[in-house]
Amino acid sequence: MLAHRLIERKRDGGRIEPGEWRALALAYAKGHVPDYQMAALLMACYLRGLDRAETAALTEAMLASGDRLELAHIGRPRVDKHSTGGVGDKVSLVLAPLVASVGVVVPMMSGRSLGHTGGTLDKLESIPGFRTSLSLAEARAQAEEIGCVLIGQTPEIAPADRKMYALRDATATIESIPLMAASIMSKKLAEDLTGLVLDLKRGSGAFLPELDRVLELADVMIKLAADHGCACIALVTAMDRPLGRACGNALEVEEAVATLKGEGPPDLLSLTYAIGAEMLVLAGVAHDTDAARRELEKSIGTGRAAEMFQRIIEAQGGNPGVVDDPAILPQAAECELFVAPRRGFVARIEPKAIGRGVVAMGGGRTRVEDIIEPSVGFVITARPGDWVEVGEPLATIFARDRAGITIGRQALRTAVMIADEAEPPLPLVSHRVTVSGAEPYPVE
Amino acid sequence: MLAHRLIERKRDGGRIEPGEWRALALAYAKGHVPDYQMAALLMACYLRGLDRAETAALTEAMLASGDRLELAHIGRPRVDKHSTGGVGDKVSLVLAPLVASVGVVVPMMSGRSLGHTGGTLDKLESIPGFRTSLSLAEARAQAEEIGCVLIGQTPEIAPADRKMYALRDATATIESIPLMAASIMSKKLAEDLTGLVLDLKRGSGAFLPELDRVLELADVMIKLAADHGCACIALVTAMDRPLGRACGNALEVEEAVATLKGEGPPDLLSLTYAIGAEMLVLAGVAHDTDAARRELEKSIGTGRAAEMFQRIIEAQGGNPGVVDDPAILPQAAECELFVAPRRGFVARIEPKAIGRGVVAMGGGRTRVEDIIEPSVGFVITARPGDWVEVGEPLATIFARDRAGITIGRQALRTAVMIADEAEPPLPLVSHRVTVSGAEPYPVE
Repeated sequence: MLAHRLIERKRDGGRIEPGEWRALALAYAKGHVPDYQMAALLMACYLRGLDRAETAALTEAMLASGDRLELAHIGRPRVDKHSTGGVGDKVSLVLAPLVASVGVVVPMMSGRSLGHTGGTLDKLESIPGFRTSLSLAEARAQAEEIGCVLIGQTPEIAPADRKMYALRDATATIESIPLMAASIMSKKLAEDLTGLVLDLKRGSGAFLPELDRVLELADVMIKLAADHGCACIALVTAMDRPLGRACGNALEVEEAVATLKGEGPPDLLSLTYAIGAEMLVLAGVAHDTDAARRELEKSIGTGRAAEMFQRIIEAQGGNPGVVDDPAILPQAAECELFVAPRRGFVARIEPKAIGRGVVAMGGGRTRVEDIIEPSVGFVITARPGDWVEVGEPLATIFARDRAGITIGRQALRTAVMIADEAEPPLPLVSHRVTVSGAEPYPVE
Repeated sequence: MLAHRLIERKRDGGRIEPGEWRALALAYAKGHVPDYQMAALLMACYLRGLDRAETAALTEAMLASGDRLELAHIGRPRVDKHSTGGVGDKVSLVLAPLVASVGVVVPMMSGRSLGHTGGTLDKLESIPGFRTSLSLAEARAQAEEIGCVLIGQTPEIAPADRKMYALRDATATIESIPLMAASIMSKKLAEDLTGLVLDLKRGSGAFLPELDRVLELADVMIKLAADHGCACIALVTAMDRPLGRACGNALEVEEAVATLKGEGPPDLLSLTYAIGAEMLVLAGVAHDTDAARRELEKSIGTGRAAEMFQRIIEAQGGNPGVVDDPAILPQAAECELFVAPRRGFVARIEPKAIGRGVVAMGGGRTRVEDIIEPSVGFVITARPGDWVEVGEPLATIFARDRAGITIGRQALRTAVMIADEAEPPLPLVSHRVTVSGAEPYPVE
């Protein structure tokens, strides 16, 4: 009866009280509220909205539906980052070992591929043997020992969110600012963090393409974090094109490894430094972002960052040899160049089309139970703004068979637009948002 | 994928095309679309609305998801009525045999108790042995033979609606004009009718309390019927107080039997004549409602109407003796008078409080699987506007035990308001709506 009453109230634009959110989240996590009632409530929340107090209460309720990864006893700052998801976004793979290598604990809980976007867990699992489904006790022990752990949302962490998120995915209720904020923060707050950096994507490949909506999300999340004593800042970053060159699980791991050695694509390296510098400042191990950046560059330069990645891989059962020899990663059976069909400027590289291409080639999921083929995807060397001649190579397609190559070629044809004029892309990082508001990010 | 796309589109205020409704209704009826996706879509429909073309397409789609009760070969007019549901509304029990007794075929498909409202099927099943779950073939044979059959929605009739309706009940998406109209009309159009009279309730005890919303529903439904060559008119009637005196399944059957013999409460008899007269005119067996009314009065006067009810009961396995001896009906173990706690005017008798009281006493359902206790309920002799002295009997409570009497007394205390001034009740029938629009109903 509770669920029906709350659906009715939210449907009519009313508020749900903290105690009601708590009771609902617990009942839903335990299976006492059926999915169909939760689905109706989520759509009512999507269309009617939640105010700040409700969003905070929902976050609390989902957090309280499970356990936390207790880490305070380690006595060191604990900082994580969260990205709203994009195409080619392998920042987490570079950032977690990099930041951990300078002495900050990074207890990173990531997700799986969703829609057109990739997932850090799927990428990590392309490393032979790598286990992402650690228990809370295992994760805690690893964070204590090496200062970094890369895991998925365990069944104990915010189980109400876990179920609700899967349901939102199936019921077209993902793109709601309060629901997104509560879902992300209920998981992040369960990591017992002292600091959190948000990488909020905007542009055509983002879940929230419009800047004003992204800034609203930033504001809601930063305040939720502040309420829990977690320092939080957000960077608004570009997702009007894929990040870096590689799109596809194993290909992205290879690119991440190169980046950890200082050999990655400039945009990926630049964004990793931007986020990493904020993490170091929040952790109190650097006075300002310039000093922080130098720390990070040094760690990459000395090989400490790459070494930390090896330690993490080894601790989680993976083959650490991939850092020295990426050929250990699954290799595609077929590959083929994709060349420019005409001369002109690369006007756009549409991330959604690229992401959907990867999914269609087997590198993502259309259903939760789909098994991912880690080797497939694209390495796109062309960048928006480049001038290209007809026949010039723009990308390489990696597929499991010829049919996959055809799918990949079709995706690139849709995604890569060549025109007589270049379109200005979004700045890689456009805004920095703190608890005091948003300000433009300095151009490099 | 279809469901997700349609949810997304409706969520954003878009339209769903006829072919999409058809595919969705079929897939849902077959269990290929999960309840949670349908629940999200229904909430999006509730909040975003459906335009006329969509409502027609949804009606068609639900109708086409199942079979029809083919009756055209009988060669006589086939007329039914539908009420949007109320408390104490036993009109169907009187009307179906009455109209059938003057030669019109009445293939009446009714529902079960829902929320605070009673259900014709539950009332009929308080008659020992009465079967409402006839197959389509049985229903057809009975309609051919005696001209009337009183059944529930069979699994073959509009299965998509059947599932969707149960889901709407659980997800607070009942009170939507297009969803209500499509649900009702998909079932009624499956009865192969030549005419349909709608009894649309308004007032505090109705699903749509406000007149403007009721008139909107009337307009939508009349046009849906017209599109299918079914003549349809609607009467807007009062549900700001219970209809008649008896509220509760067996008690209402007893009152219906009395009314079929001309001994019922004036409001019940009056509404039955008003609706019945429209049915006779639509059927073409009377030139105008005055002539029709005389026909109906004659049938009650000669005992033909009561006799028809006996034939129906017998045909459906029930004990026809109830018409002569209502003591055959289940009898409550306990009964007690409820008296006026103060002197004054009976200002209101709130139907929702009465209906919920019946449910709480075991005479209705809070879950689909609940078993109904047919004997319990109220006989309320006081009418709004009556002057009463302290201690004067206002109602009798019928319960299965003393605890039930206490619940009943509490419900009556909430429902019956006595004040120094009388509130004018709504007119029993306030409007008559045809395809040309609404007009005030003549005062008797």
